[in-house]
Amino acid sequence: MNGADSLCDTLLANDVDVCFANPGTSEMHFVAALDRKPRMRCVLGLFEGVVTGAADGYARMADKPAATLLHLGPGLGNGLANLHNAKRARTPMVNVVGDHATYHVQYDAPLTSDVEGVARPMSHWVRRTQAASDLAADAAEAVRVARQAPGNIATLILPADAAWGELPADTPAPPVARLDAPPQTTQDAVRAAAQAIRAGQGVALMLGGMALREPALAVAGRIARATGVRLLSPTSNRRTERGINRTPVTRVPYPVDQAVALLKDVRQLILVGASAPVAFFAYPGKPSLLAPQEQAPIVLATAEQDLLQALQWLADELGIAAGAPGLLPVAAPADMPRSGALTGAAVNIITARLLPENAIVCDESVTQGREFPLISATSAPHDWLQLTGGAIGIGLPLAAGAAVACPDRKVITLQADGSGMYTVQALWTQAREQLDCLTIILANRSYATLHGEMKNVGVQEPGRNAKRMLDLQEPSLDWVSLAAGMGVEAVRVDSVEAFTKAMQAGLARKGPYLIEALI
Amino acid sequence: MNGADSLCDTLLANDVDVCFANPGTSEMHFVAALDRKPRMRCVLGLFEGVVTGAADGYARMADKPAATLLHLGPGLGNGLANLHNAKRARTPMVNVVGDHATYHVQYDAPLTSDVEGVARPMSHWVRRTQAASDLAADAAEAVRVARQAPGNIATLILPADAAWGELPADTPAPPVARLDAPPQTTQDAVRAAAQAIRAGQGVALMLGGMALREPALAVAGRIARATGVRLLSPTSNRRTERGINRTPVTRVPYPVDQAVALLKDVRQLILVGASAPVAFFAYPGKPSLLAPQEQAPIVLATAEQDLLQALQWLADELGIAAGAPGLLPVAAPADMPRSGALTGAAVNIITARLLPENAIVCDESVTQGREFPLISATSAPHDWLQLTGGAIGIGLPLAAGAAVACPDRKVITLQADGSGMYTVQALWTQAREQLDCLTIILANRSYATLHGEMKNVGVQEPGRNAKRMLDLQEPSLDWVSLAAGMGVEAVRVDSVEAFTKAMQAGLARKGPYLIEALI
Repeated sequence: MNGADSLCDTLLANDVDVCFANPGTSEMHFVAALDRKPRMRCVLGLFEGVVTGAADGYARMADKPAATLLHLGPGLGNGLANLHNAKRARTPMVNVVGDHATYHVQYDAPLTSDVEGVARPMSHWVRRTQAASDLAADAAEAVRVARQAPGNIATLILPADAAWGELPADTPAPPVARLDAPPQTTQDAVRAAAQAIRAGQGVALMLGGMALREPALAVAGRIARATGVRLLSPTSNRRTERGINRTPVTRVPYPVDQAVALLKDVRQLILVGASAPVAFFAYPGKPSLLAPQEQAPIVLATAEQDLLQALQWLADELGIAAGAPGLLPVAAPADMPRSGALTGAAVNIITARLLPENAIVCDESVTQGREFPLISATSAPHDWLQLTGGAIGIGLPLAAGAAVACPDRKVITLQADGSGMYTVQALWTQAREQLDCLTIILANRSYATLHGEMKNVGVQEPGRNAKRMLDLQEPSLDWVSLAAGMGVEAVRVDSVEAFTKAMQAGLARKGPYLIEALI
Repeated sequence: MNGADSLCDTLLANDVDVCFANPGTSEMHFVAALDRKPRMRCVLGLFEGVVTGAADGYARMADKPAATLLHLGPGLGNGLANLHNAKRARTPMVNVVGDHATYHVQYDAPLTSDVEGVARPMSHWVRRTQAASDLAADAAEAVRVARQAPGNIATLILPADAAWGELPADTPAPPVARLDAPPQTTQDAVRAAAQAIRAGQGVALMLGGMALREPALAVAGRIARATGVRLLSPTSNRRTERGINRTPVTRVPYPVDQAVALLKDVRQLILVGASAPVAFFAYPGKPSLLAPQEQAPIVLATAEQDLLQALQWLADELGIAAGAPGLLPVAAPADMPRSGALTGAAVNIITARLLPENAIVCDESVTQGREFPLISATSAPHDWLQLTGGAIGIGLPLAAGAAVACPDRKVITLQADGSGMYTVQALWTQAREQLDCLTIILANRSYATLHGEMKNVGVQEPGRNAKRMLDLQEPSLDWVSLAAGMGVEAVRVDSVEAFTKAMQAGLARKGPYLIEALI
């Protein structure tokens, strides 16, 4: 038994039994140890952004962390963008990053870098294990930190000699981390929120994190129905339970002007595991803070606290019975388009209407999918996973991870073509693991967001340099070939009829399938 | 005129006229400014690792920096692995990383991160511009630092409001950075080296950086021929000028045992812009330092100094005339294989024999290409660019950048399949720019290095978990489809005859072409 065995055993003892991996030489003892633990499911990604994005998708659905296995500073660097997204989602994750043997670092071999420095910006917790005998305690602590509500990115740096260091035969059983329940909010906070609701017009509950799951949403729905408060959510969320017979929540739109318009009558925000809404980017002459600023927001509960409990207390304080009606009206479903050239809007409507019960929707549709959440309020109940940190390239890996967590649920990815390219290698993992992932590529063949932003900065007619930085043409990407190159069957469609047929075919089968929707 | 214009003008005034870019919203004013400067060649990469890898390849061949355009912390994160390689190569590079407007950072919008923290591990110099009026001076300083011998990674963080800030009409012309010539070594160092050469057996010159270019190599060859010193180079180098009628240099092999065997008779190392050789990774019971340690190395010149001058002074000190013979014997070229199943060795030999005059070889062949440098000593004169930092995923981008720098030269990439996947998006840039890149995928369908390393850690028969982390099968990658998906014509071959034919076809044409060599 060596340090790597101890690490694996501790992860397993703490219910971490999936490892998304992209190993290298310095992790070979860890790989050998994983090889001795068939209970650990090891899922290879051909690029580290796939690994961290998949670990994010897994944990969002499993509500527990996966481990990742990454190779020194550069391997971690490749995973940073999706770690950033996971950090913003407050997804629990345990990263194991191999590094040189402790005594080898001084020689500054080519792969030497400041691993802690790379880890820190996108981790909540970073520790470098010193020796094999520390690995059990360090790994248990990493899992504990990762699972602390609302979830944290824990990065454990594993020197090669800590992995290969031998441990005595009488090494104790791996420690199991104590998981503390999230703290509760205060009665003062509950009373302040109730008072504002009773007193005011223009009160809105801003729901984030676990407040967007069904139990909390049901309570929020009763409060809204009884009092008339509006229910809002941040633009991007880790996981929202949505669809017919669930409490609909109005999401703050991404474009600043639309967000300001939506929020203009909000006089009092009550925060439930969310922050006051801010603009995704700053623009000259536009506000950073999107809601009116006359009243400071009331914090009913922070993301670290028990949000369901806080909402229940608020309902109690307002005298709303547990059996009170909670369902709120939603717009009637959009008419299903029947024929014609394919558009982004048609893709959204058809997808929303055909969505199977209990589907998981991974949404990196960017510009083309902005209507999807509006249209899908009346879809079959589903989970909706979003790009939380704005670092594009999460959709395909997120879907892979969600499918690993939920093998019996259909995972549907709305994927913009530009952002899909950043971690396109995830298709291979979907094929390798035969994951039930149906990918819809919204192929507009440009960075459409940026075309809009160019207009925002006053460029009406982009010249050659700008066009060549914003268009994905010359040559056009051929997603059917890309998918085939990684073992995923795919079809290209450009009409409503063909897309509908392809969706039906994709939904009828099990396993990865890709539809390139030319819009 | 705004800050972004000032930045572009300063880059152009300092002879930085290529920008590898992957822009986002916060860089729109910079993109708009680039659009007003048709002299700047903007090259889009669909992933940031392509951008930084291409900037590395460009600068290795152009001997001046390109700019990169990256999008906040996560975009920079995606570029870190190839920045690590470039930092290890001491390639000059100017990264422009967009960030939120200065006043927007406090609101912690979703894409906010510690950009300096992400930049620092892989940069020699990091600065955050404070205002539009600082951009000219900051950009000129970034170029100056980047170009300081032997080359540096300079990262300039560009807040959006510094880019969009207006500048007065009487803003002075952009500053031109003064480039200092590299300092010269000391006469003491030259005398110490000469004395060791005169006195000793087992003396070796370890040549790095600019000492691996033709002028310095010619001097080193005369010294070796006159004195019998051995000429060595590090395992991985930025750019080596090689081939027939050039001074051959023995590269320290990657495997530790082979390196130790090669170096066992070295009694005195003389360092010329290189470090004493260290093992790439540590292994239990194997040394970190590869050469015998009885004598401390003599530093003839550091990487920061003028290496050609140092070698010339050394030759003078040793009384070697400028016209003295310098050519050293090399092994006769290997026989050209004529038929049979394709092997890595056959690919190496055929490629070396068919190499056209003045080709640029980008080498990320990893296990399968280790013989190439031995075989190609008698190839037509060529430049050989290597993976310097061990962060795999550089070959395809490096080739793209080298081809942008040298449009009249054939760029041939020896690319392992596993590492090729990390930045596979570079094929699209090769197609978009119609770069003269011939890519050979050495498709062994596994992480062959790691299979070897597993044996090194004592696992003779890997189990399911290990196999699934080390093999690239189930499904196999189909590189012909991957290339087609990005607009690059490709062919798959598995015999010597077919590979030879494909090479001849690829060499006869201009523009990107890919050969998947099943070995």
